Amino acid sequence: MSKRPTIADVARRAGVSKGSVSFALNGRPGLAQATVDKILAAADELGWRPSNRARSLSVSKAFALGLVITRDPAVLSSDPFFPAFIAGVESVLSTRGQALVLQVVMAGESEQDGYRRLARDGRVDGVFLSDLRHDDPRIDLLVELGLPAVTLNRPDGESPFPAVILDDRPGTRAVVEHLIELGHTRIAQVAGPPAFVHATARTTAFVETLAAAGLEPLTETGDFTAAGGIEATRRLLALPKPPTAIFYANDRMAIAGLGAAQASGLTVPDDLSIAGFDDSELAEYVHPGLTTVRADPFAFGEAAALTLNQLVDGAADVPDTELPPAQLIVRGSTASPAV
Amino acid sequence: MSKRPTIADVARRAGVSKGSVSFALNGRPGLAQATVDKILAAADELGWRPSNRARSLSVSKAFALGLVITRDPAVLSSDPFFPAFIAGVESVLSTRGQALVLQVVMAGESEQDGYRRLARDGRVDGVFLSDLRHDDPRIDLLVELGLPAVTLNRPDGESPFPAVILDDRPGTRAVVEHLIELGHTRIAQVAGPPAFVHATARTTAFVETLAAAGLEPLTETGDFTAAGGIEATRRLLALPKPPTAIFYANDRMAIAGLGAAQASGLTVPDDLSIAGFDDSELAEYVHPGLTTVRADPFAFGEAAALTLNQLVDGAADVPDTELPPAQLIVRGSTASPAV
Repeated sequence: MSKRPTIADVARRAGVSKGSVSFALNGRPGLAQATVDKILAAADELGWRPSNRARSLSVSKAFALGLVITRDPAVLSSDPFFPAFIAGVESVLSTRGQALVLQVVMAGESEQDGYRRLARDGRVDGVFLSDLRHDDPRIDLLVELGLPAVTLNRPDGESPFPAVILDDRPGTRAVVEHLIELGHTRIAQVAGPPAFVHATARTTAFVETLAAAGLEPLTETGDFTAAGGIEATRRLLALPKPPTAIFYANDRMAIAGLGAAQASGLTVPDDLSIAGFDDSELAEYVHPGLTTVRADPFAFGEAAALTLNQLVDGAADVPDTELPPAQLIVRGSTASPAV
Repeated sequence: MSKRPTIADVARRAGVSKGSVSFALNGRPGLAQATVDKILAAADELGWRPSNRARSLSVSKAFALGLVITRDPAVLSSDPFFPAFIAGVESVLSTRGQALVLQVVMAGESEQDGYRRLARDGRVDGVFLSDLRHDDPRIDLLVELGLPAVTLNRPDGESPFPAVILDDRPGTRAVVEHLIELGHTRIAQVAGPPAFVHATARTTAFVETLAAAGLEPLTETGDFTAAGGIEATRRLLALPKPPTAIFYANDRMAIAGLGAAQASGLTVPDDLSIAGFDDSELAEYVHPGLTTVRADPFAFGEAAALTLNQLVDGAADVPDTELPPAQLIVRGSTASPAV
């Protein structure tokens, strides 16, 4: 039962991160030569060698990529991001005969087991890392498991994996500036849950853009569902001085808010301007058409799959991919406030 | 290179279907004893034995179930059925640590290869069979591959697999009867693509219900997308005698049609009644709320996963599951026609 040295042991001995060890042992560029030398020396001293599984992975392919989602399974139908992202991934995989292995981990269960299960017996050739969190522990886990990965956006810690980046903030700034230019001064947002990096990014861009114009932000937090959007809208409209414009962190809440405003007798955009985020299919077709921000999760999935497949195919140095940032789409649901 | 006898060879010799052979060789009930005897005799004479893969499947589990979708990958984001169905499946799988292997096969490619890939190396323990077609060739293929399966609704040919059944027709009849009771006589439908069994079922129920009331059906065919719903709506409203009520085969087309009618200056429901199918999340929240039919694809996925897992767990005789039929949900988008 003598324990084989792991990447963590090598990292400890060399005094570097596990990510750096993975870089060095896989011959990927980006580290100082002195660091590489130190790591290789530590690996030699410990007698480190790649695990059988890692080696078998490099010769035999599973023809499948993995996605672990740590949310309520219902999010797959209530949040338009994942279906569109998965559709984009499949648009690449279907041309290569690859499958997508989808592992949903319930809140409170071990997410790490989800990745271990995917790694077990080499059932996937690589994984997508979504819903990044602060100092995400999954980076080290995947290095340890020897699984190629691509991250959706760049993690805030060190990561040996290429990232596919889609910046929500320019589009958020553009929609808020659009409302300010129309003459609105009481602008509210219905934000998404603050646990998600992407929800926080939109909120920060909203608050900063208003502050730059000398305006006070008015924020209600929603949960990305239609019902949550309705409730937040009702609370905002019941204020002594209700907003004249509301920006919602996704289209689903915005379309529900549009219906709630109309049901309460308001005319959109004359009495209230409404803007969303996603440019989901129905945004163009509700009446009035929804001003929104187009983030294109389908293209995100497509780019992530192309990037991950470069790694799986053995490319030595796969760069980050920067997608065009989310952009403002102006339709009929926003106009100057009544005077 | 002597070829081993297959289930098809046994079926041919015994003069029965491959499904019956599968039933008999797996000791499942439901066949006459004389038929079982004939099949076992034929298998003996041919020296038939289960393949290695089939045997290894019975002892080692992949802890994954498979779904092959033969449609444009974009359907995963444009059609609410699959995300909700998959969410329901995952609500069961996530409690057992199972993964879902999703294989999208592009139109024109070999769908059978999709199933063979899933069966290869026992990477799934069973599969869901969706989008059933007339005399579906996948039934025999799965029998041949030795893969447990559950069908979504009952195929029209012979099948050894349990089915999960959700009947769209009672809900469709109910919505059409609701429009007739309101006093409408010019009732149109925007149908889904006729290639799908479920789209045809809704169309047939629509036409028959109108015929029973002595009314002529008016049909435009859509493609389940919002854009297709808009186009079909415009064609219907441009008729010399336009309909006073439109039933859409999904909510997405209905919500888009609602927007198109409102954009053309019509008031819903005073000038035009609109009804959908799905009861998707936004149906309740658009203004006016959408009268629709609730089919509950989440519950469909849940029931299908529970049924398939019974087979995977080795249950001898898994019965069909009949879900509550789709039902009418009346909201503000339907009313009596103006006189």
